[in-house]
Amino acid sequence: MRIGDIIERKKRRRRLSDEEIRFVVERYVSGEIPDYQISALLMAVWFAGMDEAETTALTLAMADSGDRIDLSGVDGVPVDKHSTGGVADTTTLIVAPVVAACGGRMAKMSGRGLGHTGGTLDKLEAIPGMRVDLSAEEFVRTVNRCGLSIVGQTGNLVPADKKLYALRDVTATVDSAPLIASSIMSKKLASGASGIVLDVKWGSGAFIKTTEEATRIAHLMTAIGTRAGRTTVALVTDMNQPLGSGVGNALDVAEAISVLRGECSGDLLDVSTALARELLVIAGLYVDADSAEAAARRAIDSGEALARLAAMIEAQHGDPRVVDEVALLPRARRTVSVRSRSGGFVVAIDAERIGSAAQILGAGRARKDDPIDPAVGIVVKKRLGDPVDSGEELAVLHINEEGAAGEANERCAGAFVIGDSAPDPPALIVERVAP
Amino acid sequence: MRIGDIIERKKRRRRLSDEEIRFVVERYVSGEIPDYQISALLMAVWFAGMDEAETTALTLAMADSGDRIDLSGVDGVPVDKHSTGGVADTTTLIVAPVVAACGGRMAKMSGRGLGHTGGTLDKLEAIPGMRVDLSAEEFVRTVNRCGLSIVGQTGNLVPADKKLYALRDVTATVDSAPLIASSIMSKKLASGASGIVLDVKWGSGAFIKTTEEATRIAHLMTAIGTRAGRTTVALVTDMNQPLGSGVGNALDVAEAISVLRGECSGDLLDVSTALARELLVIAGLYVDADSAEAAARRAIDSGEALARLAAMIEAQHGDPRVVDEVALLPRARRTVSVRSRSGGFVVAIDAERIGSAAQILGAGRARKDDPIDPAVGIVVKKRLGDPVDSGEELAVLHINEEGAAGEANERCAGAFVIGDSAPDPPALIVERVAP
Repeated sequence: MRIGDIIERKKRRRRLSDEEIRFVVERYVSGEIPDYQISALLMAVWFAGMDEAETTALTLAMADSGDRIDLSGVDGVPVDKHSTGGVADTTTLIVAPVVAACGGRMAKMSGRGLGHTGGTLDKLEAIPGMRVDLSAEEFVRTVNRCGLSIVGQTGNLVPADKKLYALRDVTATVDSAPLIASSIMSKKLASGASGIVLDVKWGSGAFIKTTEEATRIAHLMTAIGTRAGRTTVALVTDMNQPLGSGVGNALDVAEAISVLRGECSGDLLDVSTALARELLVIAGLYVDADSAEAAARRAIDSGEALARLAAMIEAQHGDPRVVDEVALLPRARRTVSVRSRSGGFVVAIDAERIGSAAQILGAGRARKDDPIDPAVGIVVKKRLGDPVDSGEELAVLHINEEGAAGEANERCAGAFVIGDSAPDPPALIVERVAP
Repeated sequence: MRIGDIIERKKRRRRLSDEEIRFVVERYVSGEIPDYQISALLMAVWFAGMDEAETTALTLAMADSGDRIDLSGVDGVPVDKHSTGGVADTTTLIVAPVVAACGGRMAKMSGRGLGHTGGTLDKLEAIPGMRVDLSAEEFVRTVNRCGLSIVGQTGNLVPADKKLYALRDVTATVDSAPLIASSIMSKKLASGASGIVLDVKWGSGAFIKTTEEATRIAHLMTAIGTRAGRTTVALVTDMNQPLGSGVGNALDVAEAISVLRGECSGDLLDVSTALARELLVIAGLYVDADSAEAAARRAIDSGEALARLAAMIEAQHGDPRVVDEVALLPRARRTVSVRSRSGGFVVAIDAERIGSAAQILGAGRARKDDPIDPAVGIVVKKRLGDPVDSGEELAVLHINEEGAAGEANERCAGAFVIGDSAPDPPALIVERVAP
């Protein structure tokens, strides 16, 4: 087998065999195949595609490239969720405690963020004392004790994805369905959960810009999960406006706590309970979706979900009092209103632009090693279809560095399009994809 | 300007600007852009293509990446030819002396071969004492004195092509019309000739397998030459059988001498006089093609072309007596006949296969630094449409290493397809492409 022949075959739109795909992944991770041959292959895949079987073979070869987490010590069915990412998308901090409160076992490995805000780990670290670097044993023990644990990657998980992603990032080959699906699913498979629920987002704040593409990737990922022996379900959800209102790290934690206290209704709650419903069904705890969703809502109303979050925070060395007193979270020095320059209705929101405004304030990273400020960010005050007067507040900036405020305000204001009539509200959950 | 954005644009099938293309070439040669980004771009070009203006910009940026040869010292219009390569394609050694004999100035820089036989330089070096490493001054002086000189590249000519070609070779991006055209034309432009005639070959012994592709590349190259201010004409010619009969290095030289002595008629002579005709016209020595071709044939009949070859050999320190006594060329230890296993007519010849048989005997290189044996090779005895009896000689192997004879014989015999009736002869010159 020779890499030159494999590139040639993919260029000619041929199917690659399992053996060819495994050869490529293994020799790339070992350093025998250089970057410049892999980047040519990645571009050929961008144009010629990969079918379900090829993408599954790629995913499995990637998952096998490093350690796999052993969750056999979890007493119950370990389940996991993944979101393709959006703005004010804090579902994990809501879904995980809800599932735990209903008897599920949520064992989640998360990443750090690149872009508009931090990842789930960065958000958790906004909680004083919180640790996300548990050992594999502590991780399993916390899942068994609290019903949930959210940690950073332990061990050498999917080195093939680290290497491939870094290369895709600089060769314009990120936006390829088989490469996206294999990147996500290889990490999910290596993380050891038996059931996986995927939240595939489309819209102005997602990297997937059409429902068709989102649905295609959702089908591809559920097919891969199923072929790999994991129960996998995907929801395609709307990301044409920030899902919640908090765009930051401490701000996101505060909003998740507020939802778990039963103080908020709306899209963030609705997507979270839908995801929790799917997780409870694939965990085998509920047979029908309606009773699973009812249980999820009860877990919030009863305060049990909030108690589970507090238990996890305590088990991971954080200060559990934050769930009752969000003022214990880091706070920015001052706030500034972003005001509308015209009156009417909010007809469109460029969610990515709001995210980039938050990044300018210091809530997210431009590069992997940039520091982030947990306190800063944006609280969005208007949603699609809301009436708005000229001069009315659209959002509030939480600021520590004065220098960034002007550009962030400008950018945030520019993200709202004000028109004459209210648009139809977008469908929140576009499709449920199950094998 | 960022290379990531440029790759993205080409991936989206957008036109790249002259500035973007120059940025890529300059930064790649300087080492600022790494191989892995260029290979992704090359693959995007393979799929998305480049139009005439983009390909011209690429060619000019490549030509500007290193030294350019100054031929202003040539007294007359310096002209050059290039063949995309074939089997038993010895036209340069015939065309250059013919053009010189008719008053032309043939200033040709050639390369070494990779594949079935050596390049023109390797063939010339089969002549005892012959030197091809002249300085720029010696080169111009030889052209002025003899009317022709054929040398290796002097100076740092088109480093961009060296780097790009090496990368294309290992990333399955060789067979792209804009990349082929820019590679050839950048070297022609940097070599300084005012007029360029291209021999674009298609068929079983060429790397271009269809007339359509050959014609497309011919149009692209003449357009580039014209845009760059050089008179450029291309002939699309047949390479579905070896052009001449000698496939080797000394064997090729002997055949060229034989043609110049007026001892051979046939395709090699006809393509050579057609190329010479075009060169004489673009040099401004003849106005109409017919009288140019008649002059070319007269130069052979009169012996003047042969005298010019002898003069160049002497000027480049070789033994000019070879033109009268080809036995002075290296000779293989023994010859072996390749015989037909059946009778009928030659209906097809896999010319590439005959080339690879010659390579097995030692006539060509598999790798850049392999030595070649000037004496060995194959003399082909049958052409398309020839009748053949079972057991009759198809070709003769010239052998020094006994170990290679069996496989070469097998391969050479397998290159001839014998059928029941003679096929129509292929058109030798398919098209003439002029701007």
